[in-house]
Amino acid sequence: MKSPGYGYRGNNDPDERRCAIALHLVPLLGPVRIARLVTTFGSARAAWHASEAELAAVPGIGPRLSAHIARSRPAVNVERALRRAGEAGARVTTWWDAGYPERLRELDDAPPVVYLRGRWDGTAGPAAAIVGTRRPSPYGVNVARTLGEALGRAGAVVVSGLARGIDRAAHAGALREDGMTVAVLGCGIDVVYPPEHRSLMEAMLARGGVVSEVPIGMRPRPQQFPPRNRLISALAQAVVVVEGGVDSGSLITARHAAAQGRAVYAVPGSVFSAASRGPHHLLAQGARLLQGPGPLLEAVGLAWRPGTSGPVAGLTDTEARVLAVLDERPEQIDRIIEGTALDAGCVAAALATLEVRGLVQQTPGKRFARWSVFEGSNRPHRAGGVTWSNHSSS
Amino acid sequence: MKSPGYGYRGNNDPDERRCAIALHLVPLLGPVRIARLVTTFGSARAAWHASEAELAAVPGIGPRLSAHIARSRPAVNVERALRRAGEAGARVTTWWDAGYPERLRELDDAPPVVYLRGRWDGTAGPAAAIVGTRRPSPYGVNVARTLGEALGRAGAVVVSGLARGIDRAAHAGALREDGMTVAVLGCGIDVVYPPEHRSLMEAMLARGGVVSEVPIGMRPRPQQFPPRNRLISALAQAVVVVEGGVDSGSLITARHAAAQGRAVYAVPGSVFSAASRGPHHLLAQGARLLQGPGPLLEAVGLAWRPGTSGPVAGLTDTEARVLAVLDERPEQIDRIIEGTALDAGCVAAALATLEVRGLVQQTPGKRFARWSVFEGSNRPHRAGGVTWSNHSSS
Repeated sequence: MKSPGYGYRGNNDPDERRCAIALHLVPLLGPVRIARLVTTFGSARAAWHASEAELAAVPGIGPRLSAHIARSRPAVNVERALRRAGEAGARVTTWWDAGYPERLRELDDAPPVVYLRGRWDGTAGPAAAIVGTRRPSPYGVNVARTLGEALGRAGAVVVSGLARGIDRAAHAGALREDGMTVAVLGCGIDVVYPPEHRSLMEAMLARGGVVSEVPIGMRPRPQQFPPRNRLISALAQAVVVVEGGVDSGSLITARHAAAQGRAVYAVPGSVFSAASRGPHHLLAQGARLLQGPGPLLEAVGLAWRPGTSGPVAGLTDTEARVLAVLDERPEQIDRIIEGTALDAGCVAAALATLEVRGLVQQTPGKRFARWSVFEGSNRPHRAGGVTWSNHSSS
Repeated sequence: MKSPGYGYRGNNDPDERRCAIALHLVPLLGPVRIARLVTTFGSARAAWHASEAELAAVPGIGPRLSAHIARSRPAVNVERALRRAGEAGARVTTWWDAGYPERLRELDDAPPVVYLRGRWDGTAGPAAAIVGTRRPSPYGVNVARTLGEALGRAGAVVVSGLARGIDRAAHAGALREDGMTVAVLGCGIDVVYPPEHRSLMEAMLARGGVVSEVPIGMRPRPQQFPPRNRLISALAQAVVVVEGGVDSGSLITARHAAAQGRAVYAVPGSVFSAASRGPHHLLAQGARLLQGPGPLLEAVGLAWRPGTSGPVAGLTDTEARVLAVLDERPEQIDRIIEGTALDAGCVAAALATLEVRGLVQQTPGKRFARWSVFEGSNRPHRAGGVTWSNHSSS
């Protein structure tokens, strides 16, 4: 069953909105049951004003929930919710509003009410979600930041959850490149969680926005986060899981994404890293392997444009040659000299310059490595043509 | 066309053998053409004694190759080859010999002659090939060594190519656990290449063996290595590519393996590591993701048995608790203390013991990480049941 807002044609009705918000403020009453009530009674208003007996007769509601609704109604205060949203600078959108985020309408369990803050207006432009664990490895942070940068630079909206770790790195990467980025919160849109992300959230309001279906003022509670994940994937055309455990929230997001018809990508990593178990699990289940931002950009309809993470401009010939022989693996200077066939002094000078420019890092033992960068590859993720005889037997 | 040795029933004939070896010693005459000659003329002897005109009439031979064969025949010295093989302690087996490696018989391009040295007798027991680049990352070496150890411990033959890098680590891992390991050489079986692998090769002769189709005494030449790879995959039931470039010899081995119906696995790694591009390419093409030795052992018909790389015996309760909170990511001692809920002094003492025992490493900044170990998981590589809606569109 699609939500009553599916196929919306601009039928604004202030009282319908208020009643939808009222229904949404009843604790324990979720999107699917609200949709059923509205469909059964013909409008949010009729559903809101239905008697306890009428409510109980609706399939899937029953006597206990109808009693709960009847008990809860007197405490629901739509005016207060709207006032507090206004104070927080938030817009309140319902199924029947033009400002309701377009990609959420088509969900079976589209939230009846969505709160929005910031510059992002809910339109369905190019958008990719980058998700992952709150306890990433340095590698995962590097990947998430680099993907966020590439997407932001290319003009895609980076969607994530404002959580610690991978989420933060993805949002920050987009912001660093003056890109748009949107967070779906698991708490009221006027609550900052985690608290240390206040400045990140404020930066996002100027370059994107935050979204929540959780009523205004609501503190973060564990049960609010899994449903939040379905909105992260719904707002994006493609979802990439950077790091996370096999039972992590990121994998819930990936499953929502798959069910919603979104492209699902997973970033491979060390087989020794617990944080890569989730992505590897997804890859074994058929998720697409993401090795760089190119395929993700293509999935959202954009072309890959190398920037600070791509080829580097303004290098001398010597510097470029030194950089070309380096990769993430630290290498001794003798080997670098050998690889470039340049004079030792030139190589040392070039390495110093590259280090100052943030392109090269020196590691213990006077070894040098290139700072991690994605290859600007647009190679499709499945080359096709080759089939593996062992594949069907697995 | 299967090789003439396919379906061998023990029909030894000394002269047939000599003529097969003679044909094999003719430069430029490969297994497929030798098989065609033997099939056309009814025996290796008849093929060896055929006139230039008779040879030229065989489809795929023609006048130029027949002239070359006729010109080369006088220089071929089977007795010398057999004598030199004997001096090197090698056995010489042909398509028609009982000692010919069983898994090679079924190849379309099975070598007419295979030289064997060492304890391994060519039987088709549990065997997996571990292959990869000659210039691996420390991660790749760690993976190859750990896989070699697990296979060796479980009683599988570890097959590889005696090359630098991944091959060496795989062979050495098997030997460390007193396992069997076999190398397929790209040079004559009496030649040590690379020269620094002499002691490795000698250790292998006692715990496995070396195999080559390249005539005795032949130096390594670049063109001898790609065909060698088909024998590595053929001798194994499963092949895993640990690291390698997209155009590397390891990917040639993987393609041979797929064509031969062997299970093909690839080890994921950092997307920033050039050495993992090849495995990632294979994964995108449908190779199985290998996250630990379990699935590889299952593929060769063995059960996973944890050993030195698995759970660790003989730890105090405190040491076990400290080890349990560590993974490959370096962690500050304060966090470790927090994670174990133990006294700081106890944790520090446990870390010191674990470091001495080689289970924990201290990294710069007084941080501690667990030495990389595989999880002893038997989880199947594809969980099945979940399908990804984006998969078919890729």
